[in-house]
Amino acid sequence: MLPQRRPFAGWAGTTCVVTGGLGFIGSNLVVALTDAGARVRVVDALVPAHGGRADQLDGVDVESVLIASIADPQVADVVDGCDVIFNVAGQVSHTASMRDPQQDLVLNTTSHATLLDTIRRVRPSARVVYTSTRQVYGRPTMSTVDETHAASPVDVNGVAKLAGEQLHLVYCHAYGIATTALRLTNVYGPRQRLSSDELGFLPVFVRKALLDETIEIFGDGTQRRDCLHVADVLTALAAATDARATGHVFNVGHPDTHTVAEIAEAVAEAAGSTAGVRLVDWPDERARIDIGSFHTGSARIAAALGWRATVDLRQGLCDAVSFYREHPWYLSST
Amino acid sequence: MLPQRRPFAGWAGTTCVVTGGLGFIGSNLVVALTDAGARVRVVDALVPAHGGRADQLDGVDVESVLIASIADPQVADVVDGCDVIFNVAGQVSHTASMRDPQQDLVLNTTSHATLLDTIRRVRPSARVVYTSTRQVYGRPTMSTVDETHAASPVDVNGVAKLAGEQLHLVYCHAYGIATTALRLTNVYGPRQRLSSDELGFLPVFVRKALLDETIEIFGDGTQRRDCLHVADVLTALAAATDARATGHVFNVGHPDTHTVAEIAEAVAEAAGSTAGVRLVDWPDERARIDIGSFHTGSARIAAALGWRATVDLRQGLCDAVSFYREHPWYLSST
Repeated sequence: MLPQRRPFAGWAGTTCVVTGGLGFIGSNLVVALTDAGARVRVVDALVPAHGGRADQLDGVDVESVLIASIADPQVADVVDGCDVIFNVAGQVSHTASMRDPQQDLVLNTTSHATLLDTIRRVRPSARVVYTSTRQVYGRPTMSTVDETHAASPVDVNGVAKLAGEQLHLVYCHAYGIATTALRLTNVYGPRQRLSSDELGFLPVFVRKALLDETIEIFGDGTQRRDCLHVADVLTALAAATDARATGHVFNVGHPDTHTVAEIAEAVAEAAGSTAGVRLVDWPDERARIDIGSFHTGSARIAAALGWRATVDLRQGLCDAVSFYREHPWYLSST
Repeated sequence: MLPQRRPFAGWAGTTCVVTGGLGFIGSNLVVALTDAGARVRVVDALVPAHGGRADQLDGVDVESVLIASIADPQVADVVDGCDVIFNVAGQVSHTASMRDPQQDLVLNTTSHATLLDTIRRVRPSARVVYTSTRQVYGRPTMSTVDETHAASPVDVNGVAKLAGEQLHLVYCHAYGIATTALRLTNVYGPRQRLSSDELGFLPVFVRKALLDETIEIFGDGTQRRDCLHVADVLTALAAATDARATGHVFNVGHPDTHTVAEIAEAVAEAAGSTAGVRLVDWPDERARIDIGSFHTGSARIAAALGWRATVDLRQGLCDAVSFYREHPWYLSST
């Protein structure tokens, strides 16, 4: 069990919009907000093969769910009168972005430009928090990557996410919309789509371990990553609504790094899998967009907003495994 | 008269594609390439109110001119078999990008993703040079801005140009397409559209001076800029086709900076205008995307490729004025 936290204590009665609210991070956010008594309006395009699930919020008391792109004209009604917009919608697959650059640019860039115009027109006083990704940095040239590191993305997804993030900041500086962007590291935890091989290595490892299948690692497994439990993302999202965060970009990572091999072993152990771990060659389509080791430096958000990660990897993986044991349908492909 | 230079000496018989070839920089490039004996194929969308003119290349011996977006399927035939692609097409107006973000994102980002896919499919061995802008940096935090400065654009144009630039580098690193990006400072010279107030302050100043009208400067005129004559851009474009430039981004600026007031005086003097210069308040739509003083640091391209600017401001302005005296139709709006 994770320590009980209430990132949205005191939010009862506030009206929040969560884009991507049927996805992994979005649905965890919706649950936490409704638990705190907030009124929540969800927008999700449910793009096939992406992270969203139609049943993700079954039994959760939301005000409304709009199944549509964030660029849809109906989003104006959703945004109207809200206090906070958590703009979590996005396409996260690096390999899919290389197969279909145009779709990635629509989902991560141009549709966000439309959403920002909608907010500017309908609800310019709303607080807006956007979830970006550490993928915008590309291959790191520092041992711990802080926000001064140049953004040189290695795939279309990183390019499109960076543009989406920068549009949010342009609308802050040009029009006074109170936006903040968070660059998230690899995130894991409950409500993640496990059935796809394209949404990052963590959900694949978790699925394989839960099915007692051998976890395959590309290359030699010595690359390091910092992994963040989604509960820590929720505290960062809450912290990012602070007025001191307006107009800023913050990395959101974990102080601990592990090799990919260590992460695989930890996942297998948390799931009680005995099928082990195996090294395989890099597939071409992944090798060409690989970035090597990466450690997300989170000193800026710690200093500015007092946020830090609190869930360690083993504890977080046990929580995730326990969720999926209770909700085994996440292992299947719908 | 500018010193005679032949940046494309030795290019006779090469086949070059110039996108945006009916625009300001593109048409100067086409003229220089055809003068050197290169076969030139032009693609230009002739977007109304942008920099392109249908009569820009009248009398210039090009192989073909396709009036179409760079995302048009017919571009495959243009690219087929070429040696070098100068991808100069783009929308340059900062204010227009704020009025219509979607158009800017199409013209500067998504259409370039399509072009890169076309190149990858049809002519992956082509050398590709992309013209980006120092606008990607936003408000500078260094006195001279080099390529390590974080890119924090203040307007949609800067966001979209940066994404377009990064897509070129992604296609280099992921697929081996030999791309290079040049971040150009404010450029002036022959063949620029003078009739619009939205394509930068330099063409407006030149038009006002040629018409003997008072040049209006926003604010106090103390902001500094480095200005580059288009002849210096051509030598940079030629240098950027060097194999050592592949996969890199280079600033392309001038070592001299001047205040905007000094630039206005120099333009008036070059044109022999007696109508003078006047300070006026910043229009809102410009004030909110202003970046203060900026000096483009070009040490990287000097070290890597031996390129440096050679035309000083007064000499360059005299050349420009002399061109427009001989081609007065550039002062009118078609």
